[in-house]
Amino acid sequence: MTIRTDRDYALELDRADELAHFQSEFVIDDPDLIYLDGNSLGRLPKRSMARLREAVEHEWGSHLIRSWNEGWFTLPQRVGAKIAQLIGAQPDEVISADSTSVNFFKLVVAALRARPTRSKIITDDLNFPSDVYILQGAIDLLNNRHRLHIVHSEDGLTVSTDQLREAIDDDAALVTLTHTAFKSGYVYDMAAITEAARQAGALTLWDLSHSIGAVPLAVDECDVDLAAGCTYKYLNGGPGAPAFLFVRKDLQEELLNPIWGWFGQRDQFDFKLQYQPARGINRWQAGTPNILSLSAVEPAIDLLWEAGSDRLRAKSIAQTEYLIGLWEELLQPLGVTLNSPHDYRQRGSHVSMGHAEALRIDRALIEDLKVIPDFRYPDNIRLGLAPIYTSFADIHEGVSRLRRAIVERLYEKYPLERPDVT
Amino acid sequence: MTIRTDRDYALELDRADELAHFQSEFVIDDPDLIYLDGNSLGRLPKRSMARLREAVEHEWGSHLIRSWNEGWFTLPQRVGAKIAQLIGAQPDEVISADSTSVNFFKLVVAALRARPTRSKIITDDLNFPSDVYILQGAIDLLNNRHRLHIVHSEDGLTVSTDQLREAIDDDAALVTLTHTAFKSGYVYDMAAITEAARQAGALTLWDLSHSIGAVPLAVDECDVDLAAGCTYKYLNGGPGAPAFLFVRKDLQEELLNPIWGWFGQRDQFDFKLQYQPARGINRWQAGTPNILSLSAVEPAIDLLWEAGSDRLRAKSIAQTEYLIGLWEELLQPLGVTLNSPHDYRQRGSHVSMGHAEALRIDRALIEDLKVIPDFRYPDNIRLGLAPIYTSFADIHEGVSRLRRAIVERLYEKYPLERPDVT
Repeated sequence: MTIRTDRDYALELDRADELAHFQSEFVIDDPDLIYLDGNSLGRLPKRSMARLREAVEHEWGSHLIRSWNEGWFTLPQRVGAKIAQLIGAQPDEVISADSTSVNFFKLVVAALRARPTRSKIITDDLNFPSDVYILQGAIDLLNNRHRLHIVHSEDGLTVSTDQLREAIDDDAALVTLTHTAFKSGYVYDMAAITEAARQAGALTLWDLSHSIGAVPLAVDECDVDLAAGCTYKYLNGGPGAPAFLFVRKDLQEELLNPIWGWFGQRDQFDFKLQYQPARGINRWQAGTPNILSLSAVEPAIDLLWEAGSDRLRAKSIAQTEYLIGLWEELLQPLGVTLNSPHDYRQRGSHVSMGHAEALRIDRALIEDLKVIPDFRYPDNIRLGLAPIYTSFADIHEGVSRLRRAIVERLYEKYPLERPDVT
Repeated sequence: MTIRTDRDYALELDRADELAHFQSEFVIDDPDLIYLDGNSLGRLPKRSMARLREAVEHEWGSHLIRSWNEGWFTLPQRVGAKIAQLIGAQPDEVISADSTSVNFFKLVVAALRARPTRSKIITDDLNFPSDVYILQGAIDLLNNRHRLHIVHSEDGLTVSTDQLREAIDDDAALVTLTHTAFKSGYVYDMAAITEAARQAGALTLWDLSHSIGAVPLAVDECDVDLAAGCTYKYLNGGPGAPAFLFVRKDLQEELLNPIWGWFGQRDQFDFKLQYQPARGINRWQAGTPNILSLSAVEPAIDLLWEAGSDRLRAKSIAQTEYLIGLWEELLQPLGVTLNSPHDYRQRGSHVSMGHAEALRIDRALIEDLKVIPDFRYPDNIRLGLAPIYTSFADIHEGVSRLRRAIVERLYEKYPLERPDVT
């Protein structure tokens, strides 16, 4: 692929971008800051800022406890239903609750207990570590009756559907993967892998954290059993915002949330001393939902819905292709490697680049050049493109400054130490 | 006890109240609204409102991902250390995380697994239902090897220390109670019960939700093993704000959080695929902490610290005594019963009153008379007195209006249906 590397071309692409106006929906107070970390923490939507102020000052401050009956009680379901639209689920198949890790725990334990005669859990080494930790903890909790089968990536970037198919046998209880790999951005074939698991009688659990809001999802169409994900990346829900979980309709009564809290109780305000799980998706809640943070999530999802999954995906592909085109022309000659799939069909909305000095380059970008990428140990710079607010000019400028950091050896003044970023 | 029932007396008490000025720290935009539900949802501190605005607009909006390294990462520990001051723990024995139910789950499962040869869990029927549900779920999860021994209250208001002592034997794995009972406001003898459990070799887990911020706590002095609690009642942390948990120092390495998330991982950003629990209290985290809501909690706790546990308790006692005095003179003759202990040493900061028509009286108070009490099914009106912002005049006015609702039979127009309030 050959592309034009001049800034005018980026501006042309921005002028032709039918989603460009969405940028004005976000707080961008320093236009010179190139933010390429929306895959870690999405930008602040102006609507969320206004909504939060209302939730704090009006709902909490003035209406106090009455607000529970004026919308707070149903907020987890309301946000869940909106998330459902983005992942191709029914409104009553998704609920917003807890953190991704806690939701993942609930689903893993429930799934393993629903397949008591099977002992194998299949995942791979591209999965997000927290998911693997949760699996290890669940195995320990359930008396080490299960074994974790970790499929290894051969190139460090991808794991083929065939590799996974090979691992799935009739002892498989659960197949769980992160739909878009957190490091390489590799996107799995959800339909084929879910189908293979289904045929073997295993349940599937997909982590959608790095997909939702940027990569179209169709969990119902793919016959997915379970899913979880976060809302603070491409959904722009705010730091540590409440996560979500999906349970396919016909599994909602079969599977059991192991955390029997009062928000999952059938008749919560009876205050009876015997737990009876609520019907449907509500049983997957536990404690009191986090109202303020949830309030910020709701309008953020609306924005993505207005932009439309297909248009977001089209722009995301155009942007990652453009970024990779610039890499070929401007960065590859400087020793920068592409650590994401070349094929856009296998790629989410972030692109990873490697360099022996990646750690220090990352620091120079942040401290000297006002570029905020993301860094993944040991040598991986992740460039997250959030199609709802990232412009082609941002990408052009980001690459130019990255080039400058290398050419001018701006990184050399930094020590070899690891920064902590999510 | 005989007290003066005139309004002037209430105003005199307010003038003599050395904590009165704290009321101006809270958003109170309708002085005619009598809010007696701070034990369910505390009022909005002005400082929290300002702090939240800064967290949203400056930290999220402008600083974006960089804010993680500018204070967000250590926020759960920082808030935890402040909560520790309020409960008599060391700063590194408390962390803020998740909901109370999820924290309670983590601690229950950890405790039961740490006492593998014992099968008895002791609680009572005054405990908050969500805690009992969590216990039932943990028993189910751990293959029904445990039995739940529920001590029954004889008067519906209290359970004596002797009753509990009788239930604690050498098969007891865990003794868990809510320190201030959610319905009657009864306060347990934490020191004596914990000591009895310790002597029998059982672990103790206290739910501090209805105590913290109003009743002084000394978990270290009482040799408490484990505790959890919420921050949205007397702590005024906001609706569904992140909860906290306490693990006594020497148990932090012995007990194991069953939810192995990345925020409880020793070297979180190594992204190694083998969970290794973090040292100390940090291992009790799981997923990404909820930053916005946590930001609101921090200044709310500062306010309570400034007021001081002893002064808050002294005012709380004076206020519940005053309320009970007014009840004797003005409400008891109308058939209202006192559903809280008479003895202030056995009472937290809310007072429950019963009446055959309590449900409809509650509704008349809210809809006709601008009083917001709390209601607990089937016939219990809870009047929560938050010493940091409730005035004696509020109490006087609340009782006057409650009297009016009964005398003028304002409740009669309402149907017998149950409102949903937390």
